[in-house]
Amino acid sequence: MTRWMWTVGAACLGLATTALAASATPAPDRARGIAAAWRQTHETQILTDFTTFLAMPDVATTIPDVEANAAYLQAQLEARGFEVRILRAAPGTPPSVFALLKTPGATRTVLYYAHYDGQPISQKGWVSPPFTPTMRSGPLSANAPVVDWRAAPAPRDPQWRIFARAAGDDKASIQALLSAFDAMKAAGVAPSVNIKLFYEGEEEQGSPHLRTIVEANRDLLKTDLIVMGDGPMHQSGRQLVNFGSRGVMGFTLKVYGPLRPLHDGHYGSWAPSPAVEMAYLITSLRAENGDIKIPHFYDDVVPPSAADLAALAALPPIEGQLEHDLGFAQPITSARLADSYFRPTLNVRAVHVGDTGPNAANAIATSAEASFDFRLAPGETPARVKVLVTDDLARMGWRVTSAPPTSEERARYAKIVELHWDPGESTAVRTPLDNPAAQAAVRAISAEEGGPILQMPMVGASSGMAEMVDVLKVPMVGVSIANYDDNQHAENENLRLKNLWDGIAVYTALLSDLNW
Amino acid sequence: MTRWMWTVGAACLGLATTALAASATPAPDRARGIAAAWRQTHETQILTDFTTFLAMPDVATTIPDVEANAAYLQAQLEARGFEVRILRAAPGTPPSVFALLKTPGATRTVLYYAHYDGQPISQKGWVSPPFTPTMRSGPLSANAPVVDWRAAPAPRDPQWRIFARAAGDDKASIQALLSAFDAMKAAGVAPSVNIKLFYEGEEEQGSPHLRTIVEANRDLLKTDLIVMGDGPMHQSGRQLVNFGSRGVMGFTLKVYGPLRPLHDGHYGSWAPSPAVEMAYLITSLRAENGDIKIPHFYDDVVPPSAADLAALAALPPIEGQLEHDLGFAQPITSARLADSYFRPTLNVRAVHVGDTGPNAANAIATSAEASFDFRLAPGETPARVKVLVTDDLARMGWRVTSAPPTSEERARYAKIVELHWDPGESTAVRTPLDNPAAQAAVRAISAEEGGPILQMPMVGASSGMAEMVDVLKVPMVGVSIANYDDNQHAENENLRLKNLWDGIAVYTALLSDLNW
Repeated sequence: MTRWMWTVGAACLGLATTALAASATPAPDRARGIAAAWRQTHETQILTDFTTFLAMPDVATTIPDVEANAAYLQAQLEARGFEVRILRAAPGTPPSVFALLKTPGATRTVLYYAHYDGQPISQKGWVSPPFTPTMRSGPLSANAPVVDWRAAPAPRDPQWRIFARAAGDDKASIQALLSAFDAMKAAGVAPSVNIKLFYEGEEEQGSPHLRTIVEANRDLLKTDLIVMGDGPMHQSGRQLVNFGSRGVMGFTLKVYGPLRPLHDGHYGSWAPSPAVEMAYLITSLRAENGDIKIPHFYDDVVPPSAADLAALAALPPIEGQLEHDLGFAQPITSARLADSYFRPTLNVRAVHVGDTGPNAANAIATSAEASFDFRLAPGETPARVKVLVTDDLARMGWRVTSAPPTSEERARYAKIVELHWDPGESTAVRTPLDNPAAQAAVRAISAEEGGPILQMPMVGASSGMAEMVDVLKVPMVGVSIANYDDNQHAENENLRLKNLWDGIAVYTALLSDLNW
Repeated sequence: MTRWMWTVGAACLGLATTALAASATPAPDRARGIAAAWRQTHETQILTDFTTFLAMPDVATTIPDVEANAAYLQAQLEARGFEVRILRAAPGTPPSVFALLKTPGATRTVLYYAHYDGQPISQKGWVSPPFTPTMRSGPLSANAPVVDWRAAPAPRDPQWRIFARAAGDDKASIQALLSAFDAMKAAGVAPSVNIKLFYEGEEEQGSPHLRTIVEANRDLLKTDLIVMGDGPMHQSGRQLVNFGSRGVMGFTLKVYGPLRPLHDGHYGSWAPSPAVEMAYLITSLRAENGDIKIPHFYDDVVPPSAADLAALAALPPIEGQLEHDLGFAQPITSARLADSYFRPTLNVRAVHVGDTGPNAANAIATSAEASFDFRLAPGETPARVKVLVTDDLARMGWRVTSAPPTSEERARYAKIVELHWDPGESTAVRTPLDNPAAQAAVRAISAEEGGPILQMPMVGASSGMAEMVDVLKVPMVGVSIANYDDNQHAENENLRLKNLWDGIAVYTALLSDLNW
């Protein structure tokens, strides 16, 4: 760690002038103190910045929205001395924000990844509009009321939560890093290494252009370590570093029935029912306990190593508390939650047939649609999974099409299903637990936390960074700061204030102490 | 059949003055000639009246809409000499329209039933608004274009179709009866018996108040025969009389999962999935071939009699043509379509979990909803079915609730399903094939048709008239006039013009010749 004279607005590389020394044994709690000092005097500013950022719609299917987010980030980063470049795979595709801040004398470079785009917002049940950041005094499960944070004096109750799309996934990580820079500047503390940022703009769409962008910018993105800021914290609330993530791929199935909706009184016992066919199809793909029933689906899975198993065993038990918090009597498997991440998962994310409620008609629908996604374990590839799924559907007697069936297909095949794969997909990505760069990150955060942190061999989620790691061939660790119950990917996404304050401290530790 | 001096506006009973003679052997084709003569000179008027009626929204969940329909019908009927009363179970419930036209000297009374309310309209894919009646030159399956029927000279092509909610189900029957009266009046032909009409206003909601209305008006509704105008014609296109219908009852199931939506990467292999649970639940209730898997579900079913079986065997084969028209390769069972009506059916009318399409989130939903209906065979009762379903759910390990589960229920029961029965329900209703009144109706229509008509022991659909028959203890026959491919209960409901013209002839025969 070094003292550093900041050059405000130093947008060009190499303008900073102080020297850097490696900091293998950071001083305990020092980073936490820097962050706390800043937050105590700038809480309103941090919250103003964060809610401004959250108020910007950021679903990547609307390009002008993500363009506006990227422009905002560019301005924020340039004001903090970064050199910024907007990267796109092609005109009209969502922008990613790259930023560079060189540290004179540094021999290492660390790239911080997060995504600023958010999940789609159409879920029912948002208690406040997803892009109208709204503070509540706690979680919705406690019926916490809205509070006027602007009128409230600092320090606000750290149990308060900001409700908005992307509050936890991932704008919190970006805000924490920006505020950490501000805190370090105020304290006269310089980054320990060269800093690169890569803020993706379409991760929640499956990162369809990430590989293209990374391949086209290998030199720009060259780094010794990637720190990935996506995802929530461990359910125990303890700070966690993870060493990998599962792959992901999605698909939709549409089962076809009669050409026109049929009165079920007249035809219900005779005509094929897409609703029933889809139910049987789902049960043929997945068991109630989560086992995937597609033949050979587990053939390629690489089992956890002895080190992985030891790390898994060291994780604190959270399952009982989770069952209580999530409101169900028992999980579908006796396996521990983190152990299950070493196996693939098939999730049925949606099923839609016919109308319900006051519009329910006594009819046989013409088709049934369902939407699925796989989380892939290490060793599995999307290409192989596509073959396995298609073969299994054919084995079960389905005619698999990639378009609505023709009259000839309808006349010939009793069971017709239209299959579409989502555009984005990724494999699992892993960094060995003993990688020196990764362990340096563990040390920096442990010092900030004042004790050992959790090390998870792999998280169950996926990340666009898999593409980046695959192309750049570098180690990566995941450092998450959002509360685990942040409703990410769902309605009423939120961030607990304490998680933002703690996150600023974690990023202060990483930016100022991480070196090896 | 008698000549009759009509008294326009004779809204009071007993004003008509001519005598009546029974007409056991109607003259062949006479009724058809009366109807044709009227239609040839009044086609535009008939279509104007019908489209005016169809343009009135009539989903019974919107009371002002059905009130407007009832007021319209009252005016139409009073103008034709009927005494009209609006019947309601209670203030604020949908009105039914009762009308009476006494025929001097008549010893018999026939009550005509139809419903003027329509199915809900929220189905996607309406090519024109459901309450903007739109004429096309044929069916949508032939991509028939819109035609300007007002500008076209009579006679219009009888293959043209009017697209609107309730066009086939049931406003066509009401319009055919009204126009038949006009035709008879023009021809100076009086009704053969006393005529009562009962036009229900919430059949498509399951007739929740019909029993109350009928029980409160037993004397008013007293009749020797009910002619029920609901439902489509036989798929062969031949005129059909039916002698009964199945019962119906509906229910919804809601399966509960985690309290909040969960990221499936983190929890997909561990937390219960309502989508998957619902799929298994559906497959536990019904086989792909239509068999109901609920224990004892077939115990109470009364099998068809020898006469029923003979009538079924006499029905022309239509299955092959239907498979072609409906666009599927094979039915789910080898049984003939009409044979299957003597068994109950379980239809899955809707399933909804999560979001699809561009809004699909990689999340585990908090609940899954599905909507079902049973068609009940003779012998089955809704009360017994409710017990069987509830017992079966419990047997399969479900905690059955009638409200969202409490925290205590969530903590205690791994599988929770909320069950609600639809308010309307009915048993099957049958009239013996050899009933004299019913056979008189067969004779009247056969004469009009110029040859034998089809006699179906029971249709697969259900009708609110089951309640009426149950209370009034009278025979009934069903006489349908709508094309079988009228998309009833679905988007793009339609009526072929020829079916309306033929229907006017059928009602002319019934009104002027039916007696015994």
